[in-house]
Amino acid sequence: MGFDEDSPVFRAHQGGKLSLHSTMPLTDRESLSLAYTPGVAEVCSAIAVDESLAQRYTWRSRLVAVVTDGTAVLGLGNIGPAAALPVMEGKAALFSEFAGLNSVPICLDTTDVDEIVETVARIAPSFGGINLEDISAPRCFEIEARLRERLSIPVFHDDQHGTAVVVLAALRNAATVTGRTLGQLRVVVSGAGAAGVACTKILLAAGIGDIAVADSKGIVHSGRTDLSPVKRELAAITNTGGYAGSFDDALRGADVFLGLSAGSVTEDVVATMAPNAIIFALANPTPEVDPVVAHRYAAVVATGRSDYPNQINNVLAFPGVFSGAFDAGARAITENMKVAAATAIADVVSDALDAQNIVPTPFDPRVAPAVAAAVAQQAVVDGVARVPVGAHPAR
Amino acid sequence: MGFDEDSPVFRAHQGGKLSLHSTMPLTDRESLSLAYTPGVAEVCSAIAVDESLAQRYTWRSRLVAVVTDGTAVLGLGNIGPAAALPVMEGKAALFSEFAGLNSVPICLDTTDVDEIVETVARIAPSFGGINLEDISAPRCFEIEARLRERLSIPVFHDDQHGTAVVVLAALRNAATVTGRTLGQLRVVVSGAGAAGVACTKILLAAGIGDIAVADSKGIVHSGRTDLSPVKRELAAITNTGGYAGSFDDALRGADVFLGLSAGSVTEDVVATMAPNAIIFALANPTPEVDPVVAHRYAAVVATGRSDYPNQINNVLAFPGVFSGAFDAGARAITENMKVAAATAIADVVSDALDAQNIVPTPFDPRVAPAVAAAVAQQAVVDGVARVPVGAHPAR
Repeated sequence: MGFDEDSPVFRAHQGGKLSLHSTMPLTDRESLSLAYTPGVAEVCSAIAVDESLAQRYTWRSRLVAVVTDGTAVLGLGNIGPAAALPVMEGKAALFSEFAGLNSVPICLDTTDVDEIVETVARIAPSFGGINLEDISAPRCFEIEARLRERLSIPVFHDDQHGTAVVVLAALRNAATVTGRTLGQLRVVVSGAGAAGVACTKILLAAGIGDIAVADSKGIVHSGRTDLSPVKRELAAITNTGGYAGSFDDALRGADVFLGLSAGSVTEDVVATMAPNAIIFALANPTPEVDPVVAHRYAAVVATGRSDYPNQINNVLAFPGVFSGAFDAGARAITENMKVAAATAIADVVSDALDAQNIVPTPFDPRVAPAVAAAVAQQAVVDGVARVPVGAHPAR
Repeated sequence: MGFDEDSPVFRAHQGGKLSLHSTMPLTDRESLSLAYTPGVAEVCSAIAVDESLAQRYTWRSRLVAVVTDGTAVLGLGNIGPAAALPVMEGKAALFSEFAGLNSVPICLDTTDVDEIVETVARIAPSFGGINLEDISAPRCFEIEARLRERLSIPVFHDDQHGTAVVVLAALRNAATVTGRTLGQLRVVVSGAGAAGVACTKILLAAGIGDIAVADSKGIVHSGRTDLSPVKRELAAITNTGGYAGSFDDALRGADVFLGLSAGSVTEDVVATMAPNAIIFALANPTPEVDPVVAHRYAAVVATGRSDYPNQINNVLAFPGVFSGAFDAGARAITENMKVAAATAIADVVSDALDAQNIVPTPFDPRVAPAVAAAVAQQAVVDGVARVPVGAHPAR
């Protein structure tokens, strides 16, 4: 495992990637007495009486904890909390750069579900939202569900929902480009991990009725006896086509292939898809379908890679999702808020829509504000907002 | 509990007092591929093989968690984690402004000792050091002791040791001003809470042999049956004079009064102290001895207030203590490192030393670097340093 500490990558990471500052100078007795003692005691006393004032007078109102246990980091797997820290710092840097949010990496020295839930709940008064990151499936599902139940701040597992939001945005535009509606699409999802489950659920929520999901053993269906609770739930809500065999069977005639695993699909199987197919091969760095092959059969192709058109990149979603949730003082992030985020992302490119441009690039500055506005509005509609949209004092 | 949200204090706290940024711009594909995927995977892989590389390639090497459970906040008492957050933000702002360190408030939604220890230990991989803050006695002693035992990063309860360091610095110079050595002083400490216990221990470590400590029931001595474990230990290591009665008895003829409680001492009792007495009346906002009264009997007077000379302010200690510990990659903060910090603070004013100037002002820019250098050097001497002093890459 040699590495070059003089390489641009290692030089870029020296000292870490985050820096924290005071928003006011503390250079004299007067500034200190305002920001710290004795002045701060007035603010503390006010919050002790009315905790909602913490939203106005602390940084937590726009502060995300980026929480991991280091069990599913990038494609590296279970590398532990210290080795996960550079990724979490990068994520925090993205929150700052793309949405002006503060965010802090929290890398946990435990992989026990109960301990993770307890720990995050205990530190929660310090934060305005919890972004779960790189926690392995199926533990990630239970951890997120229990934290959502327990906390009244946004909890969002980005590997699930960030991916799901951007996939839905891309698929909405891919359908438009190919002259179909979402409801007309038959979809096959490869992968029943964090992203596969969340993508399937958001596609169902968006009106796609016919989805078959495959894991490494084949199509997930109710007749299988080897399913985890999460996959049993998947089997119950998907596969209206009644597929019970191999992935290849299900893909025959399908309109959409959504790859969220590290597998690969051969050209002869891709060739059996419906005309005008849509192929999202999102495995990184090696897409499940070679993009050159995909283009022979599909009208629209997307990958997770930055060197091809139509990159499905979570950074299109999470900064705006949290920003909008904070703007609304949202107690939670609902499924509708995620769908609204996806629609907002899709709409950004509506005036320049074509098969090579179904999603904005990650650096399109219109995306985060558009997503934030849509998410905040939907929070109000869904009844989870605590403050009138636009009234947030810290913005 | 009315308060004025238009006051300068509340206006200063709008949106909180901290802001976090990326240290590199993430504005194009190239910078993103260095700081985030795919580049970051190389750094993660290297740390997974050799965790010590996290010191070089993450921000945690200079990152302090400011941890509280909100049970002993300023003079406000147990106001809970949300109401404590403005103080912790202020502390983090001071770490940044006075020593260029990153620091993050962690306010815990539990007051259970076991849960606090477990929680801090589980989030510890995210941080380079733990600053405990405003946790009530005697729980603070056990929490700190267990975390020091369990973690191999600096753990420092500032209400104990920050105060102790600055008190020792001030007392060293007060002794010099009055022509005495530390070993010649007979000291009476009022208060056996967090600060009282830590001050007593550092004064013993610095060579003061004759210390009597009083709590609200009188002098702490081995004959008492009402002592907590911490006070039993105090009784065993103090009170060589054998005082067993009231605080007033002990103060008669004493050289030093160190007030670390909210009590008050009347003029007739102050009058019984030795000639050339030293009075540190540190209760805030009301010193235990009125400064005007104190000056009638004492050669040197110090308080905790910024509007009198000789302010005993923890900010003289904690920024430099953590900075020096980080410079040395210290696994812990030893008693000797605290004594070295005190000596460094005292030495800053050695060329302008007089009874009105026994400690630097909080804004003296020489203090934090001097403290850091002394602490880092002592870490090497004490064998707790992990990197050669001066070699820290992130500085």
